[in-house]
Amino acid sequence: MTTDVSTTQVVLDLVGIFVFSISGALVAVRKGYDVFGVLVLAGMTGLGGGFIRDVLIDATPPAALEDWRYLMAPLAAGVLAFVFHPAIGRMERSINVLDAFGLGLFCVTGALKALDYGLGLVPAALMGMVTGIGGGMLRDILASRVPAVFRGELYAIPALAGAGVVVALAHTDLSYWTVALLGGGLCTGWRLLAIWRHWRAPVPTGPASV
Amino acid sequence: MTTDVSTTQVVLDLVGIFVFSISGALVAVRKGYDVFGVLVLAGMTGLGGGFIRDVLIDATPPAALEDWRYLMAPLAAGVLAFVFHPAIGRMERSINVLDAFGLGLFCVTGALKALDYGLGLVPAALMGMVTGIGGGMLRDILASRVPAVFRGELYAIPALAGAGVVVALAHTDLSYWTVALLGGGLCTGWRLLAIWRHWRAPVPTGPASV
Amino acid sequence: MTTDVSTTQVVLDLVGIFVFSISGALVAVRKGYDVFGVLVLAGMTGLGGGFIRDVLIDATPPAALEDWRYLMAPLAAGVLAFVFHPAIGRMERSINVLDAFGLGLFCVTGALKALDYGLGLVPAALMGMVTGIGGGMLRDILASRVPAVFRGELYAIPALAGAGVVVALAHTDLSYWTVALLGGGLCTGWRLLAIWRHWRAPVPTGPASV
Repeated sequence: MTTDVSTTQVVLDLVGIFVFSISGALVAVRKGYDVFGVLVLAGMTGLGGGFIRDVLIDATPPAALEDWRYLMAPLAAGVLAFVFHPAIGRMERSINVLDAFGLGLFCVTGALKALDYGLGLVPAALMGMVTGIGGGMLRDILASRVPAVFRGELYAIPALAGAGVVVALAHTDLSYWTVALLGGGLCTGWRLLAIWRHWRAPVPTGPASV
Repeated sequence: MTTDVSTTQVVLDLVGIFVFSISGALVAVRKGYDVFGVLVLAGMTGLGGGFIRDVLIDATPPAALEDWRYLMAPLAAGVLAFVFHPAIGRMERSINVLDAFGLGLFCVTGALKALDYGLGLVPAALMGMVTGIGGGMLRDILASRVPAVFRGELYAIPALAGAGVVVALAHTDLSYWTVALLGGGLCTGWRLLAIWRHWRAPVPTGPASV
Repeated sequence: MTTDVSTTQVVLDLVGIFVFSISGALVAVRKGYDVFGVLVLAGMTGLGGGFIRDVLIDATPPAALEDWRYLMAPLAAGVLAFVFHPAIGRMERSINVLDAFGLGLFCVTGALKALDYGLGLVPAALMGMVTGIGGGMLRDILASRVPAVFRGELYAIPALAGAGVVVALAHTDLSYWTVALLGGGLCTGWRLLAIWRHWRAPVPTGPASV
């Protein structure tokens, strides 16, 4: 794989952070949090997955604390959601579609960054998944609710699959963009199909012994 | 700014940690936690903000794990609250006033430490705020309740404002203590006014779409 | 103390991670989480204490992300619990006994690793305790419930005592295995007695002022 990252990458990153932040801000609005809670939940949802990854792979301070542009995306998302939440709430279906693209993007960039920092293939794929789902998990912990990703939503498994494709192909001759499109495409496509067809992750069967 | 830190700084730090720890220990007592839960909630509330900051800015191990005095403050607060909680609980108003001083102190020291570790102005101000509010957020997560800082309490915004003043003035000719007093004074003064005048942070208006 | 670590250590580590992971997976099954939630709760419970320790003492990336074997133990535990949870749930008493051995093991290895990374005696003992109890705390936070370790269960105090013995003896002439057996034995023995005799940690007395 040849690395050929450009401003396209930064723009895609910012779009992904913005979409994730909108989902966090909407949860905060619905919980009746104040303006600060809305901004924090926006920020933690948009940036939290990358923060967890960067702390674990020793890439601190996280990129979002080195480049002010990454802080502007959740700020804008939080302010928009605070003011226009009735309209944005009605667009939830569109937001879920954009969110699937954000997930595909984050599992790719997260896995590649982990490889750059010397992690093996399996841990790097896990870090790709964590980058994609970590922000939503922090959002749900801060909102005192069970993480959505545990409740049957088919979300983490596409992220892990996409990240797995990325790490498997990262050391081939394929170009950066080919690898990213294959891994991110698998993740986003699978996630969109799951939304469209109401696919659910399996839950345990049989009596739950207490 | 000239740096002229002394034992005064350490004493102030310990007072701030102690006051924050008392607030964490009281929450644990009211939840019916055992003695260990009281000590852990005291410690996480008193030291947690600094831990989060130090992990994010790569200043690990955190200072509180390098200097045993920082561990004694939450230990003392936890034991006191465990034994004397009915009396301490009645002093809650006084504790809130002391807490406002702790907040002012932590937003100053947090912002300055982040600058020392090379962060830019905006991230350093954020880290000052995180130092001030992070312990209380961890306390509320560990107590399975929505963080108080999201529920309209005017708490985080004064901390961010105080930290903002500190980073804005840090590279001027003003002395360390002048910068600290201006930033910390803004934070503490604003917070005390908010308690006294019952100021609240704005919440979203309009129907909350579900 | 002379260090003489061998594959025995790795095997013991894997057993401890596996047992902790089973307890996390069972909580997830009882909450009705999907297969992904079961695996994540298994992984966070088995590996989370070590993750927190490694992030705090600056030993990142954590060992479990450097060696794929550490990831296999929670995977196996999660799959087993997902499929056989009615049978495993009935063995809870046996699992609690194994868990006491895991606790004794983790408080020893956690304290020794912290000493290796230059921490002082008191912080190293704390890190030993954190290694033992951190996974269970993360499990309970992710399951939206009050950490079990705060609710009177005599769990953390044996872990701290065992880790304390380890750091106190680590610089003597005793062999690695002697130190480990004394510290881990104190922790595990105390914990088993607490289960057997229904010992509880003390809770605050008197009226809880609100």
